[in-house]
Amino acid sequence: MKVLSTPFRVRYPEVDRMGVAHHTHYLAWFELGRTELMREAGLPYGILEDERGILFPVVEAGARYRRPARYDDELEVRTGLAALTAVRVRFEYRVVRPADGALLAEGFSEHAAVGRDGRPQRLPPEMMERLSPWMP
Amino acid sequence: MKVLSTPFRVRYPEVDRMGVAHHTHYLAWFELGRTELMREAGLPYGILEDERGILFPVVEAGARYRRPARYDDELEVRTGLAALTAVRVRFEYRVVRPADGALLAEGFSEHAAVGRDGRPQRLPPEMMERLSPWMP
Amino acid sequence: MKVLSTPFRVRYPEVDRMGVAHHTHYLAWFELGRTELMREAGLPYGILEDERGILFPVVEAGARYRRPARYDDELEVRTGLAALTAVRVRFEYRVVRPADGALLAEGFSEHAAVGRDGRPQRLPPEMMERLSPWMP
Amino acid sequence: MKVLSTPFRVRYPEVDRMGVAHHTHYLAWFELGRTELMREAGLPYGILEDERGILFPVVEAGARYRRPARYDDELEVRTGLAALTAVRVRFEYRVVRPADGALLAEGFSEHAAVGRDGRPQRLPPEMMERLSPWMP
Repeated sequence: MKVLSTPFRVRYPEVDRMGVAHHTHYLAWFELGRTELMREAGLPYGILEDERGILFPVVEAGARYRRPARYDDELEVRTGLAALTAVRVRFEYRVVRPADGALLAEGFSEHAAVGRDGRPQRLPPEMMERLSPWMP
Repeated sequence: MKVLSTPFRVRYPEVDRMGVAHHTHYLAWFELGRTELMREAGLPYGILEDERGILFPVVEAGARYRRPARYDDELEVRTGLAALTAVRVRFEYRVVRPADGALLAEGFSEHAAVGRDGRPQRLPPEMMERLSPWMP
Repeated sequence: MKVLSTPFRVRYPEVDRMGVAHHTHYLAWFELGRTELMREAGLPYGILEDERGILFPVVEAGARYRRPARYDDELEVRTGLAALTAVRVRFEYRVVRPADGALLAEGFSEHAAVGRDGRPQRLPPEMMERLSPWMP
Repeated sequence: MKVLSTPFRVRYPEVDRMGVAHHTHYLAWFELGRTELMREAGLPYGILEDERGILFPVVEAGARYRRPARYDDELEVRTGLAALTAVRVRFEYRVVRPADGALLAEGFSEHAAVGRDGRPQRLPPEMMERLSPWMP
């Protein structure tokens, strides 16, 4: 799978009283990776939403947590595209810690395209074209 | 000062690796109190924004942190109005723990009214009227 | 399934630029429900962690998002126990809006028990006993 | 004043239904800057807390919001040290958008040193020494 690596650091308020990154933040980290993949594909979110009126809500998401992340860890989210149809896009993610090669979590998100009115719509052909090189 | 008490509990992800509520969340708790005071005054935010097109951004905010809040603590934010003019509203807040009467933090926020275009506007007379009973 | 309903309101910073609650917050809402179920079962988290040294990290979690939640919506998370063994506990959740009966999302989380050293441990018999009445 | 610039991007969930970064996140961005200044000074937080048992809680913080930040904006927090005594440290911050030179917000935070028991303690001489080159 063609993946994009996006580096980030674990921020102080992301760490809970167990001393590890709280599980909710992984979904936000996945979104960091997805944002950068979309940008790489020439489809930055902000422009999709503001200029085209295409929203891209999450319809399903999940994560498996394998090892804890600690405060200030330098991590990477590795993002790939796992499925692409005119009505559904699925991204997959791995959060890794390059320093020791540890896989901390893996997960996915599925998205539909909807218009400003909240109605489902088909992905415009240009979006399909720009995303397809990311398909395995 | 006439104040409104809004109860809430400290949530798990709000607590950091020091075992205490992270300081950023107090501003969100102040907002809980402000939201309820506005609702009490007959000015629920959602309606102001969606039906009237009046936004109410924070122009200044601050907090003094006196004692730490712990996970699952039952707290209250006590919200009052400290200043009210046609162009500026100032709220004041105290976060207390009723169980032991401890004052955990105090703070304030100042707001201007702006339209959807981001331009400052005067508070509509009806808003002034509804808020004025909350003035000390 | 025996479920516990925990009411809450959608907070201002939980709503994104699409005008709907951001998907990451549902996992935090699931945690609100789980926290209250554990409390009901006589197993408040804070005491488990602080007095018993039992941590209860999420090993897997996921959600399906069916309808958007809006700012200030009064919602409920309905939490039940779906599996319980000495090494794994699975909770299931539904987020509903009582006003119109809409199901907004459903999801799950799986947890292992670990000690302060991060090593897996078996659930103490007393915990099994307290949780078992919640099994379907 | 000697300042350290720390770049970051506005993340999707940081933007609210007004389409601008929610005011609470600025305090977290200030913390990003403070974290990097401490690291530059040879005093990374994680090590202070874990190896030295010195916690550095915020005792007061505030911000003035001048212009809104938008989703995906590339920003910088510019962090400096404004006061340094054996019992109190004050940082000052400016959040700017280099693309147009706009000053979005400015603020401060004051910190005390406390031990693991929550008791105030004096800053160790080595910390004073490492931070003093950052004083104006």
